Amino acid sequence: MNFCPKCGSTVTLKTPVDDTRERHICSGCNTIHYENPRNVVGTIPVWQDKVLLCKRAIHPRLGYWTLPAGFLEVGESTEAGAIRETFEEAGAIIEIGPLFSLLNVTHVEQVHLFYLAKLIEPKYQAGVESLEVQLFSEKDIPWNELAFPTVRKTLEWYFQDKRLGRLNEVNQIATHLDDVGYDERIDRKI
Amino acid sequence: MNFCPKCGSTVTLKTPVDDTRERHICSGCNTIHYENPRNVVGTIPVWQDKVLLCKRAIHPRLGYWTLPAGFLEVGESTEAGAIRETFEEAGAIIEIGPLFSLLNVTHVEQVHLFYLAKLIEPKYQAGVESLEVQLFSEKDIPWNELAFPTVRKTLEWYFQDKRLGRLNEVNQIATHLDDVGYDERIDRKI
Repeated sequence: MNFCPKCGSTVTLKTPVDDTRERHICSGCNTIHYENPRNVVGTIPVWQDKVLLCKRAIHPRLGYWTLPAGFLEVGESTEAGAIRETFEEAGAIIEIGPLFSLLNVTHVEQVHLFYLAKLIEPKYQAGVESLEVQLFSEKDIPWNELAFPTVRKTLEWYFQDKRLGRLNEVNQIATHLDDVGYDERIDRKI
Repeated sequence: MNFCPKCGSTVTLKTPVDDTRERHICSGCNTIHYENPRNVVGTIPVWQDKVLLCKRAIHPRLGYWTLPAGFLEVGESTEAGAIRETFEEAGAIIEIGPLFSLLNVTHVEQVHLFYLAKLIEPKYQAGVESLEVQLFSEKDIPWNELAFPTVRKTLEWYFQDKRLGRLNEVNQIATHLDDVGYDERIDRKI
């Protein structure tokens, strides 16, 4: 960051009072511009014993297979984002389940979140960011052509949990998930 | 956003080709500036049958009680951020456990993540963002003076799960968590 997005003045790296890190601080309006990791949200869309994967039509990792996933947008919940990405990239309508994996990818400033999901029907089609979309059983997963380590790990965990009969348990005891609305603010004055 | 943080030119709201949302696009260098929700990471620090809460010394919700939590920083994992915030706000050293709750707070563009945690010893002290830090048993929790709905929900879930004997199960079957390092990139060329 070189310029203040608010006022256009130059920004400099300084550690604010009571802070422990250098931040981009505007020389004009003194706004502190924080930078934070972004969330990538996706699903493990299942039909019978198969998982739906997308062949990427975009960089990075063009031509490699991935679970449907993408950046969480402002104004949507992680579940809503995962459902949207699954529809946009794979043309699939899902019933979303519990949060299955959370992977920190600190070197690219991302947190990846994958939800269990069931296809409502075996209908899907490649969106603009996919070359191809296909259901794979475990033995047919293109393990050497997966796009990202977070996808590989999530698929390995999925099939391991499936073999161990743990997927039903995950449904009952996984991380608690909820959305908090504007109306639930405890104090409306703030 | 009015100005491009990269080149200082004015930005305009437009929907890029192959996108579905308006983005801030630079009129000078054409960079698309995405905006995404931020993660707030925290813990439920437990000692025996008590939970550690912090009385906020800062706005918003100054004077109200919260679980230790704060914005995830670039370059740290969600777990590392939760451990850091617990030390900064409550002066407490913890052993971190599984992810316990994920709450979307879309109207403020935040995702809140709370981890189970055990205090290593019953030592704690208010950091600069806290007025006071105190261990509370369930009956003593200041339910009417909690800072945020995500804290209230997380505490309600915690004590409910505790009553139901589910906390040990959470440890075994919760969401899979991992970090992915730079060295694990599948293809170094990209």
